[in-house]
Amino acid sequence: MTEPESGAAEAPAGTPPLTPTYEGDFVLPGNLELECGRVLENPTLHYAVYGRLNAARDNAVLVCHALTGSALVGSWWPEIFAPGAVLSIEHDFVICINMLGSCYGSTGPGSVNPATGQIYGPDFPLVSIRDNVRAQSQLLDSLGIRRLRLVLGGSIGGMQAFEWAVHDPDRVERALVIAVAPLGAMGLALNHLQRQAIQNDPDWLGGNYLSHRQPRRGLALARQIGMLSYKSAPLFEERFARNPNRNGEDPWAPMHQQGGLIGGRFDIAGYLDHQGQRFIDRFDANSYLAILRTMDTWDPLRGSDRPEEVFGRIRARLSFVGISSDWLFTAESVRQFAETIRKAGVQADYREMVSDHGHDAFLAEQVELVRLLQ
Amino acid sequence: MTEPESGAAEAPAGTPPLTPTYEGDFVLPGNLELECGRVLENPTLHYAVYGRLNAARDNAVLVCHALTGSALVGSWWPEIFAPGAVLSIEHDFVICINMLGSCYGSTGPGSVNPATGQIYGPDFPLVSIRDNVRAQSQLLDSLGIRRLRLVLGGSIGGMQAFEWAVHDPDRVERALVIAVAPLGAMGLALNHLQRQAIQNDPDWLGGNYLSHRQPRRGLALARQIGMLSYKSAPLFEERFARNPNRNGEDPWAPMHQQGGLIGGRFDIAGYLDHQGQRFIDRFDANSYLAILRTMDTWDPLRGSDRPEEVFGRIRARLSFVGISSDWLFTAESVRQFAETIRKAGVQADYREMVSDHGHDAFLAEQVELVRLLQ
Repeated sequence: MTEPESGAAEAPAGTPPLTPTYEGDFVLPGNLELECGRVLENPTLHYAVYGRLNAARDNAVLVCHALTGSALVGSWWPEIFAPGAVLSIEHDFVICINMLGSCYGSTGPGSVNPATGQIYGPDFPLVSIRDNVRAQSQLLDSLGIRRLRLVLGGSIGGMQAFEWAVHDPDRVERALVIAVAPLGAMGLALNHLQRQAIQNDPDWLGGNYLSHRQPRRGLALARQIGMLSYKSAPLFEERFARNPNRNGEDPWAPMHQQGGLIGGRFDIAGYLDHQGQRFIDRFDANSYLAILRTMDTWDPLRGSDRPEEVFGRIRARLSFVGISSDWLFTAESVRQFAETIRKAGVQADYREMVSDHGHDAFLAEQVELVRLLQ
Repeated sequence: MTEPESGAAEAPAGTPPLTPTYEGDFVLPGNLELECGRVLENPTLHYAVYGRLNAARDNAVLVCHALTGSALVGSWWPEIFAPGAVLSIEHDFVICINMLGSCYGSTGPGSVNPATGQIYGPDFPLVSIRDNVRAQSQLLDSLGIRRLRLVLGGSIGGMQAFEWAVHDPDRVERALVIAVAPLGAMGLALNHLQRQAIQNDPDWLGGNYLSHRQPRRGLALARQIGMLSYKSAPLFEERFARNPNRNGEDPWAPMHQQGGLIGGRFDIAGYLDHQGQRFIDRFDANSYLAILRTMDTWDPLRGSDRPEEVFGRIRARLSFVGISSDWLFTAESVRQFAETIRKAGVQADYREMVSDHGHDAFLAEQVELVRLLQ
């Protein structure tokens, strides 16, 4: 139960988190003009670095986090730094930047809009994946990083890694895109349900809950819907099957809940409730809604009908990883995505991680991921 | 958009509904003692019949409806009655009985509890699949039906068809069990999310909404979660892909919704919203919660650890149908279920319907289902 989930901000059980060399804020010197037409005035990027930039400045690596993750990659992806694994604190200079819209330090719905002096709240604009990349590139400039030996990420982090390769082709040597492809109708549907779960909560108050308590029940339900899509049916079956909840509840017995007589829970229900409760203590509803939109609107071909042209810009070597039991971004869709990139003349390989853990395998089975990447 | 969904109470577009020979109520002469330990006093079963019982009384067929269906099988499954199909109005006497807990005529949460003179509401007891079969058998007795040449149903209707074969082995000649197997952890999870969607709605009032308006938004969201599990990712992709909503909304544009700025919808979101809205006008939230529990608690081996003993009672010939793209009850789980039955010495065959329609294929692709069964 303590393993990380998609975009987790926590370390897996038993693996000590790494301490960043530096953690701090970068304030963009000007306005960030967004694809949606609006502007973020002097937005802040919260970031963490691990290791040191070498004299040749050729050892920089950018890690992009997933949906509800943080800049502390050494906490949620520690096995990637294990000896002989993907990254090395001794040899690499690893940067991880919190996404705009998040509640982990970068400008988001909980920040004050300088134009109004008020908290953005539900008025926070749509920040695209591309907008994030453009903001992040200013931070890299300020750190004197002209080349990235590698940019990598899973899920929405993989969307960013891919956009880096397309939009800053001269900076990126290699990109590792894990468990992601353009989001299809089923993914859009799942996000639509999560949005409604939050907005149906009477505490949401149209997003203006900020000075009150946040829509906890709605956010917990949204998280549970998300969890379904991060895990897999075989994993649930193996772990929970039809067992009654481990705290002793009986699914056949009536049980008072919120005033009505509802039966005791099965184990899977107890697990999902637990995940929902954990989540509401660490994440903000408006941030969640903001980043869902960032995810929904990612279309690497937006504004062009010529894949060869857009993807043909890439100079990096790309590696794609699909996960066999992932049903949010199926292995087949990742494989096809890699194939489309190859057809545009880009060097791109595809590997498949065989795992029952579903979409979350890149976080839940880090040792296996590292093995696949070696 | 007008095709039937799991347990639909509506006819598919273009197919005229059949008019029942008779539609009415049967009131059980005594108490129905439920597996959960409670009692329903003189419960009512609402039912419909099509065709006439012949002199030999050997042409009776029982159809069991799915989650939110009604007794009017001629309306929601008309192709099953097409010339040369599975059933014949000329030769068969077809009975379909509304499940207990439903809002389509049988005793349910909206009925008055004779013991209190009050509407059951959230106090409606858990009625198991087996309880339903026991109540239905009293109705068949009253109609003078000693043999069923066939009992059939899909989804929760298939659970009933199967229990008929186990618990009234002398009455059932053949059972057709479509798109169902014991509900696994993923199915229990999906039902758990749907329950919360309803209970999080401030209009639910602990289930005591009856004299007020029902929890419409919560019930609509529950239905949408259900729809995801009734359909398939390939079907969604083919129909909706990443298209913007067909009414012209732009997913990139801000849009006022419930007071907050939320983006325009994708087409899949517009479709799901439409399905949710249609549903709340035809179904009741407490009934939905009641039948979800009926579904959750179905365990054909309950009270025994010897499958050979329980399944060995069956004398009927069983046919199972799995649907290739069904992820609520996977084809593999249906095939394995059939295999378990066969191992208990029962005659059971398994057929697979190849369809992109997911779980709903037995309603959405009736012509193909009929072809498979012929």
